[in-house]
Amino acid sequence: MDRRRFIAVSGLTAVSPVLAQATAAPAAAGDADADLFKHINFYDDGLGLSSREYAVLLERMSAGAGIEADNYSNGGIVAELEARFAKKLGKQAAMFVPTGTLANHIALRKLAGADRRVLVQAESHFYNDSGDCGEILSGLNLVPLAPGRSTITVDEARDWVGRSAGGRVPMKIGVVSIESPVRRRDHEMADYDELVRLSAYARGEGIRLHLDGARLFNLPYHSGRSLQEHAALFDTVFVSLWKHFNGMSGAILAGDSAFIDGLYHTRRMFGGSLPQAWPAVAVAAQYVDRYETDYAQAWQLTDRLLALLAQDRRFKSRKLPAGTSRYFLAVSGDPQAFRERAKQRGLLLPRPHPQTGEFAMQVNPSLLRSNAEAIAQGLIEAAKA
Amino acid sequence: MDRRRFIAVSGLTAVSPVLAQATAAPAAAGDADADLFKHINFYDDGLGLSSREYAVLLERMSAGAGIEADNYSNGGIVAELEARFAKKLGKQAAMFVPTGTLANHIALRKLAGADRRVLVQAESHFYNDSGDCGEILSGLNLVPLAPGRSTITVDEARDWVGRSAGGRVPMKIGVVSIESPVRRRDHEMADYDELVRLSAYARGEGIRLHLDGARLFNLPYHSGRSLQEHAALFDTVFVSLWKHFNGMSGAILAGDSAFIDGLYHTRRMFGGSLPQAWPAVAVAAQYVDRYETDYAQAWQLTDRLLALLAQDRRFKSRKLPAGTSRYFLAVSGDPQAFRERAKQRGLLLPRPHPQTGEFAMQVNPSLLRSNAEAIAQGLIEAAKA
Repeated sequence: MDRRRFIAVSGLTAVSPVLAQATAAPAAAGDADADLFKHINFYDDGLGLSSREYAVLLERMSAGAGIEADNYSNGGIVAELEARFAKKLGKQAAMFVPTGTLANHIALRKLAGADRRVLVQAESHFYNDSGDCGEILSGLNLVPLAPGRSTITVDEARDWVGRSAGGRVPMKIGVVSIESPVRRRDHEMADYDELVRLSAYARGEGIRLHLDGARLFNLPYHSGRSLQEHAALFDTVFVSLWKHFNGMSGAILAGDSAFIDGLYHTRRMFGGSLPQAWPAVAVAAQYVDRYETDYAQAWQLTDRLLALLAQDRRFKSRKLPAGTSRYFLAVSGDPQAFRERAKQRGLLLPRPHPQTGEFAMQVNPSLLRSNAEAIAQGLIEAAKA
Repeated sequence: MDRRRFIAVSGLTAVSPVLAQATAAPAAAGDADADLFKHINFYDDGLGLSSREYAVLLERMSAGAGIEADNYSNGGIVAELEARFAKKLGKQAAMFVPTGTLANHIALRKLAGADRRVLVQAESHFYNDSGDCGEILSGLNLVPLAPGRSTITVDEARDWVGRSAGGRVPMKIGVVSIESPVRRRDHEMADYDELVRLSAYARGEGIRLHLDGARLFNLPYHSGRSLQEHAALFDTVFVSLWKHFNGMSGAILAGDSAFIDGLYHTRRMFGGSLPQAWPAVAVAAQYVDRYETDYAQAWQLTDRLLALLAQDRRFKSRKLPAGTSRYFLAVSGDPQAFRERAKQRGLLLPRPHPQTGEFAMQVNPSLLRSNAEAIAQGLIEAAKA
């Protein structure tokens, strides 16, 4: 059983001093729901809602203003989400897609047009983890650049444009696809200034640009550039609905109206037009507007937390130079035992690295259920053998 | 706004004599939930749950035994549904797929193997309503047979096997795909005895067989043959989770273990592995075992209802010779006004045919919320000008 499901089924029935401190109303004995919406996780992109928590939120939404159902993923609350994301990203239109894999695929497939050669990062999720769908199903030729790095430079792109043009059958590059932050690089950002140059170069060559921004909403806090500034460099942008916004599935693909109009027929061809998508995404509507603020506050809390832990010689933390939501935490002693004791305090850590014992920590809004002092105290107590 | 969404948003706030008769506890004034789970619909394959009703059921499930979440559509309650459907269909294994379009596509794609020519019904949903995904994405050549009919005969299949073998490049037929009941033929059944002959012939030729059984669970009542007897004629079977079982999306694809094992990688390649699928399908788990009984009782109620209406000269009904869930009802006077008055009584009819004014009625378990006498009375009152 994986971690997410374990939490969903078992709940958190252990004593939780941090939680007790963070909440005003103590739990009634035997109340299975007493710990709902209280745990703090260091592994998820969002709140890490259990199935119980998600079902409770969905029921509350349906009881209030109600949830306007979609019809084969068109209309209703799905259309509302599409419009809100289009506006936030500064694009004319947006379309719901059930998974990020399909959002990236549909975007590249259409952007490529007659030029099926596509430049991607060798470390990108689409290149590594999508079963070669672009090649197998859509006749794309993905060229993997910048292995071991997060940023494709203009020089690398220019080099491949030249090589492609010089073949016996000259080929044009149709699209440059960029993922940022890069999941396989511990959520490192692609360099913004290089993206600006790359975008200008590509547009000069008539090459289209796609952004896999599954976790795009984390970039502004670290890059100092807004969502719209990032999105403006690309023709199409994909953002995940379940990573930051606590949906259970789903993605948004945004672009020009001319690009998005009628694209739901392609979604249906792929089998991606869920008859009713609202149960997977309705809850996300509650978190879209507040996420950037919550994330910034979660990092402010984390900086304070790391300062507190730095005063205890058992803890060592490190950040990445171009990092976003991830930092690493090492604790002296047995990391598994530490993790168990932290869990008793409502602090859910990822599995430690099997060799180094280091924890790859994730900053997310669940931290805001407590405060830096209480969390530091919980972790320090957990570190005591 | 389409019908389903209208119901989801507006609820049924009008007075409902039939409902009042059917339920013991009268509604408190101003209770928005007073009419939940009470309306009777004549247009849906299932209960036609509103978003509010679905969210309430999901919350109840999560509060009781709990809902074990899946992980990218594997495990948890999704695996439970897969196992239950495999058993009911007499197959070794089954896999969740988010839509029927993708279930049919993945099945045909893999069954075809090296022989990409596939025989299908010209009236089938996959041939007409799937955007030619099989041809465009999977290099299949779908040959549409039996236009205007529901059954492909052995002679038609044999003829095309011969024609295909006689081309300058001899081609083998890889798969015969059959939909039954046939949605575009008012849910008419393919002839069971002909299916038996077709299956035997195809297997003799080494041709694989797939059943689009989106509404398979309606067949036993009309054909006198069990689910397993139908499924045994085919290598793979797709059944919808949302049509009869009140999920919001989703399908089951069942077959041999050798066929299903590892197939989730293909599902992911298509972008069909929802990160968490349980919100769309958990509720279906409550209806799988009871559906066949409910459907039989709904038809028994309908037969009694039609006998009662036959005593009123304003009503005329007709069934189809090889029909399943559909019959047609005509009412003297303005059908739109009749429909409005029926709605006031909690009886939700489909839109009448624009030319004939006839209603294409659907038999489903929502009928069991009342009884034939009360429904007949409601419809007769609604028929009075």
